[in-house]
Amino acid sequence: MTEPFDAVDVIRTKRDGATLEPAQIDWVIDAYTRGVVAEEQMSALAMAIFLNGMDRAEVVRWTQAMIRSGERMDFSTLSRPTADKHSTGGVGDKITLPLAPLVAVFDVAVPQLSGRGLGHTGGTLDKLESIPGWRAALSNAEIVAQLEDVGAVICAAGSGLAPADKKLYALRDTTATVEAIPLIASSIMSKKIAEGTGSLVLDVKVGSGAFMKDADRAGELARTMVALGTDAGVRTVALLTDMSTPLGLTAGNALEVRESVEVLAGGGPADVVELTVALAREMLDAAGRPDADPAAALRDGRAMDVWRRMVAAQGGDPDAALPVARHTEDVLADADGVLTTLDAYAVGVAAWRLGAGRARKEDPVQAVAGVELHAKPGDPVRKGQPLLTLHTDTPERFDRARQALEGGVAIATERTTPTRRTVVLDRVAG
Amino acid sequence: MTEPFDAVDVIRTKRDGATLEPAQIDWVIDAYTRGVVAEEQMSALAMAIFLNGMDRAEVVRWTQAMIRSGERMDFSTLSRPTADKHSTGGVGDKITLPLAPLVAVFDVAVPQLSGRGLGHTGGTLDKLESIPGWRAALSNAEIVAQLEDVGAVICAAGSGLAPADKKLYALRDTTATVEAIPLIASSIMSKKIAEGTGSLVLDVKVGSGAFMKDADRAGELARTMVALGTDAGVRTVALLTDMSTPLGLTAGNALEVRESVEVLAGGGPADVVELTVALAREMLDAAGRPDADPAAALRDGRAMDVWRRMVAAQGGDPDAALPVARHTEDVLADADGVLTTLDAYAVGVAAWRLGAGRARKEDPVQAVAGVELHAKPGDPVRKGQPLLTLHTDTPERFDRARQALEGGVAIATERTTPTRRTVVLDRVAG
Repeated sequence: MTEPFDAVDVIRTKRDGATLEPAQIDWVIDAYTRGVVAEEQMSALAMAIFLNGMDRAEVVRWTQAMIRSGERMDFSTLSRPTADKHSTGGVGDKITLPLAPLVAVFDVAVPQLSGRGLGHTGGTLDKLESIPGWRAALSNAEIVAQLEDVGAVICAAGSGLAPADKKLYALRDTTATVEAIPLIASSIMSKKIAEGTGSLVLDVKVGSGAFMKDADRAGELARTMVALGTDAGVRTVALLTDMSTPLGLTAGNALEVRESVEVLAGGGPADVVELTVALAREMLDAAGRPDADPAAALRDGRAMDVWRRMVAAQGGDPDAALPVARHTEDVLADADGVLTTLDAYAVGVAAWRLGAGRARKEDPVQAVAGVELHAKPGDPVRKGQPLLTLHTDTPERFDRARQALEGGVAIATERTTPTRRTVVLDRVAG
Repeated sequence: MTEPFDAVDVIRTKRDGATLEPAQIDWVIDAYTRGVVAEEQMSALAMAIFLNGMDRAEVVRWTQAMIRSGERMDFSTLSRPTADKHSTGGVGDKITLPLAPLVAVFDVAVPQLSGRGLGHTGGTLDKLESIPGWRAALSNAEIVAQLEDVGAVICAAGSGLAPADKKLYALRDTTATVEAIPLIASSIMSKKIAEGTGSLVLDVKVGSGAFMKDADRAGELARTMVALGTDAGVRTVALLTDMSTPLGLTAGNALEVRESVEVLAGGGPADVVELTVALAREMLDAAGRPDADPAAALRDGRAMDVWRRMVAAQGGDPDAALPVARHTEDVLADADGVLTTLDAYAVGVAAWRLGAGRARKEDPVQAVAGVELHAKPGDPVRKGQPLLTLHTDTPERFDRARQALEGGVAIATERTTPTRRTVVLDRVAG
């Protein structure tokens, strides 16, 4: 059979710093999905894109081609508007759990097609699977029915959405081509646009625990994604948020579910509440509900009601006890002073090593494993007080988790004024 | 089993513009040869090297690691010095055929481990295989015996030399990472150093028919290779030579053998004679024979004697008639004037399409196919005279060969003084 392009020519075009033609992009994504463009050819192209970039028109076309590689969902039959949120991933980022039911309180449908964790960042599905009976896999018909009935659904993205992206993401992971902004932006946005949401709020993390360590690159990623969404007719807003230290006081699967339930009960750590409410406001604005008061819906139990119905609709028991680790160990403060650093990446790696995360897609995770925080940066601490509690069912993991934390904790012993950080750093709108 | 490095870290190092550590280079070449580093990982690394380069120390180490991936030959038992020549490849480049026996006349052993053609450039083995009975495959023992007995051998490189290079070269070919100077230089020099020659003359082609289209990049490649050879204890010199138009008056397998025999008989085209003698002088100088007179050995039949013995030693019949194409067509001059362009690349592609070359390694070639030139740039021509004759056994190929020549022939009709080009453009020594 005759192909209209040659993969070597397409790679050479980008390698030499030129712009890929629309037809080249359409072909290379389609031919890669069909297996005509080989993995080693796509990885060479991905590295050339990493180093030479893509312009706005190329990224738009690349994203469209990835969307066309699979099916699209259709929420137009729903009686209410849809709003979705995507986070670029961080440590202790359980925001989806309280956020989806909270936004659904206001008659907005929230379809959260989520993933599993890989490396030091956790995955929303892994967290929810610590709830006895809860299942991640739903058919498209079940998703639509649950959105109509409950208003919120958090489930696994089906394999039909943007299959080119799934294949390319796995390849990028093994070829050091993950952190390219055009590739990150098109990967996220192809899935979100194919999913068919009417509005989308992006939580772009900045800091040691995030993909993007600095605000400039995070801002560039946010602007690229907002433009892609806007071009595709999705009302899209991005918040840049701090990921220098974990969100909340837990990193781990069951630990984060417990903390999320505290937030839904009107309590929980201030930073988790702040970010949940900020993202809810953006989603509600984008969905045409500017007068909604999400903070009130956390306080008065309406969000908790939706949470319980959402968990139950997917087979979970919202009243069941969450599993607890058989072994815990404390990490103590080694001086009096003010905690200045509790590094998100270090905590994320420690939680991963305790069993909360996976190194390879096929690895299992421990529901119980993770790290509990007893202080946050800016808090005064006393020598000998517990700073962290490590949780695991496999105590031989404690040593490597402690190693991961070395250098990740700093206490200022001079007179330092305790301070509170701001979670939301910036906002990018279309 | 535990590997000392992670391929993703090695790729990331070069991707981010840093220098690869010696131990990283040793590992990545070895692990790639073992199949632990996957093809798609090596292609991403090759693209990062293409775009970010390697410094001198990295190229040296990379070359050494490729040499260590396989066996080394040993010519130290021979009673005479060894000298080898390598050309970066061009159109009509049959120089190895007269050169090897010519240098051997002066009691220098010439081991020419050669390859087959791919794309628009011909391969030395393909050319010699048009001689009835001649065989390319020799054992190492046969090579050494023939060098001792005849003085010259042209044969296939065994699979034992630099197997990492063989694997990497095939990968680069499909991933648009061929033209990177560090990768070209280390590929050529790893094989030549592993081959164990005492001295080496490099013929680095410049122009439309060469890998390197411009003199700056060709000069950089020459300097890199000369440095690699010198570092490894091989006396190495490079000549930069013109490949804007084909060498001699033929491009094709049997056609080039016939022209080579004319040169060995003391005739042949001036440019082929000029380059053969220039390269022979360099090889003889490097091998400690500064007083040798290679031009005389072409005229007086001594080189022809060695040629006949060399062909016969490998089963070939030096008196056998060479095959002739069943079909020929002429390409005529369309104006009176001076031929200003006869583009090497256009002629190479035409010869390839007539059947002289192959698109994939496993394709067969036609011994008879090719292009015969009746004028060279600088020659006066008359409208209607034959400029080229196309040869093939498969006449349906004529049309595509003529298409390849479009734009590759130019005749100046204004008063233009006929000129002669110089073949040798520059010289680089260690």
